[in-house]
Amino acid sequence: MKSKSIGILTKPKFPEVKTTLQAVVAWLRARNIDVILDNTSASLLGEKGGLQKTQLAGKADVLLVLGGDGTMLNAARLAGERGIPILGVNMGGLGFLTEVRLEHLYPSLERVFANDFVLDERLMLRTLVHRHGETVAQGVVLNDVVVSKGTLARMIELKIEIQGQFVTNLRGDGLIVSTPTGSTAYSLSAGGPILHPAVQSLILTPICPHTLTHRPLIVPGDAEIDITLTSKDEGAMATLDGQVGIALTQGDTVVLNVSEQRTRLIRFPESSYYHVLREKLKWGDG
Amino acid sequence: MKSKSIGILTKPKFPEVKTTLQAVVAWLRARNIDVILDNTSASLLGEKGGLQKTQLAGKADVLLVLGGDGTMLNAARLAGERGIPILGVNMGGLGFLTEVRLEHLYPSLERVFANDFVLDERLMLRTLVHRHGETVAQGVVLNDVVVSKGTLARMIELKIEIQGQFVTNLRGDGLIVSTPTGSTAYSLSAGGPILHPAVQSLILTPICPHTLTHRPLIVPGDAEIDITLTSKDEGAMATLDGQVGIALTQGDTVVLNVSEQRTRLIRFPESSYYHVLREKLKWGDG
Amino acid sequence: MKSKSIGILTKPKFPEVKTTLQAVVAWLRARNIDVILDNTSASLLGEKGGLQKTQLAGKADVLLVLGGDGTMLNAARLAGERGIPILGVNMGGLGFLTEVRLEHLYPSLERVFANDFVLDERLMLRTLVHRHGETVAQGVVLNDVVVSKGTLARMIELKIEIQGQFVTNLRGDGLIVSTPTGSTAYSLSAGGPILHPAVQSLILTPICPHTLTHRPLIVPGDAEIDITLTSKDEGAMATLDGQVGIALTQGDTVVLNVSEQRTRLIRFPESSYYHVLREKLKWGDG
Amino acid sequence: MKSKSIGILTKPKFPEVKTTLQAVVAWLRARNIDVILDNTSASLLGEKGGLQKTQLAGKADVLLVLGGDGTMLNAARLAGERGIPILGVNMGGLGFLTEVRLEHLYPSLERVFANDFVLDERLMLRTLVHRHGETVAQGVVLNDVVVSKGTLARMIELKIEIQGQFVTNLRGDGLIVSTPTGSTAYSLSAGGPILHPAVQSLILTPICPHTLTHRPLIVPGDAEIDITLTSKDEGAMATLDGQVGIALTQGDTVVLNVSEQRTRLIRFPESSYYHVLREKLKWGDG
Repeated sequence: MKSKSIGILTKPKFPEVKTTLQAVVAWLRARNIDVILDNTSASLLGEKGGLQKTQLAGKADVLLVLGGDGTMLNAARLAGERGIPILGVNMGGLGFLTEVRLEHLYPSLERVFANDFVLDERLMLRTLVHRHGETVAQGVVLNDVVVSKGTLARMIELKIEIQGQFVTNLRGDGLIVSTPTGSTAYSLSAGGPILHPAVQSLILTPICPHTLTHRPLIVPGDAEIDITLTSKDEGAMATLDGQVGIALTQGDTVVLNVSEQRTRLIRFPESSYYHVLREKLKWGDG
Repeated sequence: MKSKSIGILTKPKFPEVKTTLQAVVAWLRARNIDVILDNTSASLLGEKGGLQKTQLAGKADVLLVLGGDGTMLNAARLAGERGIPILGVNMGGLGFLTEVRLEHLYPSLERVFANDFVLDERLMLRTLVHRHGETVAQGVVLNDVVVSKGTLARMIELKIEIQGQFVTNLRGDGLIVSTPTGSTAYSLSAGGPILHPAVQSLILTPICPHTLTHRPLIVPGDAEIDITLTSKDEGAMATLDGQVGIALTQGDTVVLNVSEQRTRLIRFPESSYYHVLREKLKWGDG
Repeated sequence: MKSKSIGILTKPKFPEVKTTLQAVVAWLRARNIDVILDNTSASLLGEKGGLQKTQLAGKADVLLVLGGDGTMLNAARLAGERGIPILGVNMGGLGFLTEVRLEHLYPSLERVFANDFVLDERLMLRTLVHRHGETVAQGVVLNDVVVSKGTLARMIELKIEIQGQFVTNLRGDGLIVSTPTGSTAYSLSAGGPILHPAVQSLILTPICPHTLTHRPLIVPGDAEIDITLTSKDEGAMATLDGQVGIALTQGDTVVLNVSEQRTRLIRFPESSYYHVLREKLKWGDG
Repeated sequence: MKSKSIGILTKPKFPEVKTTLQAVVAWLRARNIDVILDNTSASLLGEKGGLQKTQLAGKADVLLVLGGDGTMLNAARLAGERGIPILGVNMGGLGFLTEVRLEHLYPSLERVFANDFVLDERLMLRTLVHRHGETVAQGVVLNDVVVSKGTLARMIELKIEIQGQFVTNLRGDGLIVSTPTGSTAYSLSAGGPILHPAVQSLILTPICPHTLTHRPLIVPGDAEIDITLTSKDEGAMATLDGQVGIALTQGDTVVLNVSEQRTRLIRFPESSYYHVLREKLKWGDG
């Protein structure tokens, strides 16, 4: 990769972020790489001229993330339509999205500059909220969209339609619509299966459904999913990647489609999806 | 039962409640039974002198409920420490708590007056919320106490102790502590088992736990359960029988014990717990 | 469809099969359709000249099935590489695979001859059993391949590899590898998700896994799955579509691939996959 | 405990069993404790005069087990009606039943002789198999009784009755009836809850039930459970503690009761049931 500029995104709450940032910025500048910092990282370094986070992707050719899977979700959103490649460095152990452990940071950067990597393209989910025929909110997520009841409400009722066909009226705590990437996040806690990232499909995982025969349902990636809040609102929300909440009112429809946008993760050929599963889920080797 | 007075509790939203109420009140008065009405029922009949709901149990020897399982939870709370017997008449089908279908109302009342019934005593759960050494809220429930995250929060963390022994720090959507009676309600939707009412035990059912090896745990009825909110509050709540919500702040402890109070349900000897399970869970007969 | 010949497959244990068979054969012959019977059906009619079941697909342009989902699995295997279209008539209610209720038999046949139908192509799974470098058994299934422990054995251990990558050593009762079609059969009972038939993927559903964090895993349809029996055999089996059992010995590898063969189900455009789900899983409409 | 004699039960497949056995026998004899060996242990030591395993409990006042949880199940059966106390030393890590790690063996024995321990009494399950009015097999288990289908059979059907009341006709792979002790064994893999050992109840956990609304059911310890095989036998078995298999024929009834017999485990007051759960289920401390 002929990378002219690297944007850096950090999660300062992790230990060693500041010293790592100082070192890696010096390392990159010594190689004449243009380093682009956001406000947070700039102030960590005591530098001026940091950009807004949302400006990073417009200026950089690659995003380097020092953080955890949450920071990666953020980076995926910031990478936006340009879909610039993201290299995740996990500051706290092993992550599903962060490819590199801290101790491998510099060899990994060398490999990026030597073009010795692959791009792992991840499907994203486009979300629109329709109210009285108008779009009142929208977003694109890498993990999941959750439609859930308010804390005090006893139950929510959602009408689910796929490709215009009625599926069911779901009553319960809510519904998770997850990408393959999100299948190892909240959906897994709610009883969902694991989807290999190469499966171009979406999971609908009910949360504590009232009817016990509701089960996670996997539908093709080209299906449009419509979720309409048919019960009273009482605090119901749509939550995008666990980060952005949209208050819903009765009758609102959350419309979900696979986006044309992709998240492009920098991977090294020897890394294994199943190895990460084994580690994170403590399957052991036997 | 030498019943001198019957209190009546109704859920007006069900169909046929008004006509049933008119008929049964006339039927009881014709038999010189003292009928005690709350405001809601009195105004349904166009009568004056209805009592506050909370006064019903102090005046009546029996509670007659025309409603569903939700109305029964209400009645259980109102029956209070006197624990007066409750006869539930289901206005909408079959219920776990309502013993009698509408078409059997009068024969059932005859049997109650003829002492041809059994009392099915149900364990209740006493709840205290401790904050900085003081009790800031309390209540007694028939079904369950739920400690759950706020709608926008990604996760809640709860420290669980039983009989003073540390059990685990649970991260997820929350925790349900359920009586045997509550085992067929919300706990079941969250993956909990069914407890026969004669098992004097409590279930701790995690809701969407982050760690996949957390499982419903059943502990003896004489155990004290302490649940401390160790994460930031962000809207966390304790909910009693799905009806009363208590906002929690970080550090609050919800203390749970089996209460000395019991709910006494009027049952007829031929009725079967397993029959109700089969019907409600659609097991069929085969 | 310019159907010159219809093969008929029946499951005589269902009620009304004989009378239905007599009537439909007469109806077809009156329309100059060549009716091809296997031995079972021929003897039901008291006719001679029935074929072996395995010869049906070689002679017929369409298979008409009078039976249930089990008969359909059989038909799928018999349809073989020619993949002739199958019309399923359910003799006992609603089926996942049988499209037509008995009362709609003749209108449905009219529509088939009028070309008013769609072909629903279902992915099939090719199975080879390798032992010491040789293929000792093989088959193609529509639903699932199950590798399971012997009845007396306490546990089986299976080494799972996908596309040559090590996934895990699974210990438990066994493993189900299911197509989307099979996702509503045994895999569902073992906790697997529902896969829409248009998702070209396979599910690996562990059966009572010893490690609680094992979960159903969905992999792309172009992945090769290798399952090696690493524990002692003690009665371990591979079972194909619940109908054919292959005894395994320690070290055997079951190799699974999506087959080029497809099952072609005759569907009518107005029929809905989700409607069948709702009915079979008793979701109700609300 | 004034222990005059210690019987020793070993599982030779674990590493270090032989050297541990040699050392502990010498240590005990040096303290004038009467050491009683079975054939296996005696031959490990090169001694003569080993007893049959089944004779151990008749001669010893305490059983010392060097093995794992499987060896403990064996010891529980051998302890028989006398219910002599059992001290489990885990030769391979942490066990649910083995209280002591190898490195604590001698201090633990000192405490046993100093009477510094508690007896943890565990409920056992009495099993009878009735055929045509006769008892054809029986046994007492510490963990569970499993009624399961033959490997080739597609499904088993079991009629379940509790206290003479019909519960359901279960179709699926089978049914586990588990004690609280067994709740962390096979039942957990099949989706069952964890029962604290002080809960005097039994769990019925269905294995891969055909009807998705079947759930683990907990019934009081004084209930009689009758399980009748109503489908054809085709290899169906009742398995006791995973160790003894009884072939069933159609119409056989497995009758289960809590036994008067108890397993008495030697525990030290500071040990914690919840600590073992956390370790074995990898809950972590957070």
